[in-house]
Amino acid sequence: MPLRIGIVGYGNLGRGVELAIQQQGDMELVGVFTRRAPDEVNTSSGAPVYEYGLLLAEEPFDVDVLILCGGSRTDLPEQTPELARRYSVVDSFDTHAKIPEHHERVGAAVSQTTAIISCGWDPGLFSINRVYAEAVLPEGETSTFWGKGLSQGHSDAVRRVPGVAGGVQYTIPSPEAMDSARAGEAGDAPASSKHKRQCFVVPESGADPEQIREAIVTMPDYFADYETTVEFISAEELARDHRAMPHGGFVIRSGLTSPRTRQVLEYSLKLGSNPEFTASVLAAYARAASRLAAAGRHGVFTPFDIAPGLLHPASAEHLRATML
Amino acid sequence: MPLRIGIVGYGNLGRGVELAIQQQGDMELVGVFTRRAPDEVNTSSGAPVYEYGLLLAEEPFDVDVLILCGGSRTDLPEQTPELARRYSVVDSFDTHAKIPEHHERVGAAVSQTTAIISCGWDPGLFSINRVYAEAVLPEGETSTFWGKGLSQGHSDAVRRVPGVAGGVQYTIPSPEAMDSARAGEAGDAPASSKHKRQCFVVPESGADPEQIREAIVTMPDYFADYETTVEFISAEELARDHRAMPHGGFVIRSGLTSPRTRQVLEYSLKLGSNPEFTASVLAAYARAASRLAAAGRHGVFTPFDIAPGLLHPASAEHLRATML
Repeated sequence: MPLRIGIVGYGNLGRGVELAIQQQGDMELVGVFTRRAPDEVNTSSGAPVYEYGLLLAEEPFDVDVLILCGGSRTDLPEQTPELARRYSVVDSFDTHAKIPEHHERVGAAVSQTTAIISCGWDPGLFSINRVYAEAVLPEGETSTFWGKGLSQGHSDAVRRVPGVAGGVQYTIPSPEAMDSARAGEAGDAPASSKHKRQCFVVPESGADPEQIREAIVTMPDYFADYETTVEFISAEELARDHRAMPHGGFVIRSGLTSPRTRQVLEYSLKLGSNPEFTASVLAAYARAASRLAAAGRHGVFTPFDIAPGLLHPASAEHLRATML
Repeated sequence: MPLRIGIVGYGNLGRGVELAIQQQGDMELVGVFTRRAPDEVNTSSGAPVYEYGLLLAEEPFDVDVLILCGGSRTDLPEQTPELARRYSVVDSFDTHAKIPEHHERVGAAVSQTTAIISCGWDPGLFSINRVYAEAVLPEGETSTFWGKGLSQGHSDAVRRVPGVAGGVQYTIPSPEAMDSARAGEAGDAPASSKHKRQCFVVPESGADPEQIREAIVTMPDYFADYETTVEFISAEELARDHRAMPHGGFVIRSGLTSPRTRQVLEYSLKLGSNPEFTASVLAAYARAASRLAAAGRHGVFTPFDIAPGLLHPASAEHLRATML
């Protein structure tokens, strides 16, 4: 029996989950649930589209796990607890500072269900690598670098600058800062000294590029503390060269096991599509959620609580024989 | 109450565990157990040394977890099942092909105890990265590279060649093969096409270097299939430059989430000391073993079965708030 999966929310992430499920041989997409009008949503796989409200109808929908693909700002704080009351769910809630609060709200909602929150790559795979690395090397420093990648929030900030018709922002880790991290000399360097920001901007006709550049590089919080470059391009170049959503990054821990013995652990992702990869992580954790639920292990979990073997379709015996 | 740890076997690995425990604030070394005469063993921390047989005495020794530091060829197949009968244990059993058999034997022995086997880096941290990566990216290729590192088995093989007074062998991953792996073009390349072997040899006085070189590079199984270099050095150079036991490697998975979207995961270790690092991994898994045992989760486990949070000393709440 394949695992019956429902997707809640059909933006970039939901479309990514649809692709991910097609690669997981033991999963079946039973439907997409949306707050939009279902007949306005066309799924690329042809999976049926239902109203979100159907999930809350008297009779629960027949699904093993819901993969929640809404945003962390307004969708998930409401939807994850609401749906975890009656369904096993996974989400990629990624507002780091609010994870404890989200965990508590979801924990208060689950009863005979299993919820795994914050299943992406940061939070998610990066987080578990931070934990493994620090547990193994207690005396050391961990540094996380992001990029090269498209930052949605910073791209939005660029597009709000007067005179800007369009644009994107890439976050780029500093190679020198990465070498310092490997050498155990990163110290408490702020993110601004570890990353550079690269903007590609389409100016409105008649706008003054120098004014735009100045407004971007001096923007507090977003750019003022960073080494920031601004390049002006045409609308055609923006459409042609900057449609992908690449991202990635590095978790580096450098430590000493004896006074002169340095040990360096490094985990890195180079992602052609940030939403498709996050979606793939969610699909694997959906498998873990279904297994925990089937074993009666109900409640709220994070990737810290999930053994690696639970993510993989093969049996524990097969994994031991082939992958250990 | 600190976790009371015993070390079984006091070679390079046992000495590494002694160092590792000093870095784990919640652990206390209660003693080293040896098959040698205890008064011939001096621990660097001053920890007491006991006869191995004391562990099998009628009254179990007062210890929470034993960290088994013997070899995989003869020590662990006997000691892990024998000791798991009455103690919670962790080992770094690393004969990949015999892991299922070892797992079965240990599983048959445990009763009210918890055993975690194969807790090093390969098997161990590399294995769990293979599982995470394959679970998340089902359509892709995983490649493991080892090195640059000192290979004990191949160094032994070099030293058995007639005319060789001493020597070491380093395994070096091929940069071209690593790039192929990242591009998803590694195929089923054998280890011999992915690694080079570098030998440093001290010839006996009067020996013919060319004969030695020929004997090494044509040695079946060990060197014949590899690109192998042999450099001749003095005994002084061997002692001065080749005493450390560095190692490391890479686990690379490259896959596609949609037809043109490549995603690359990479985990790497650069280890100043192979035994000290393996020892640090064992110490972290000893914490997991004690927690499982305390929770009544008895039986035999591998790193695939252990949630990341169990390795870290902080509470689940603290980890969620600070590291997720």
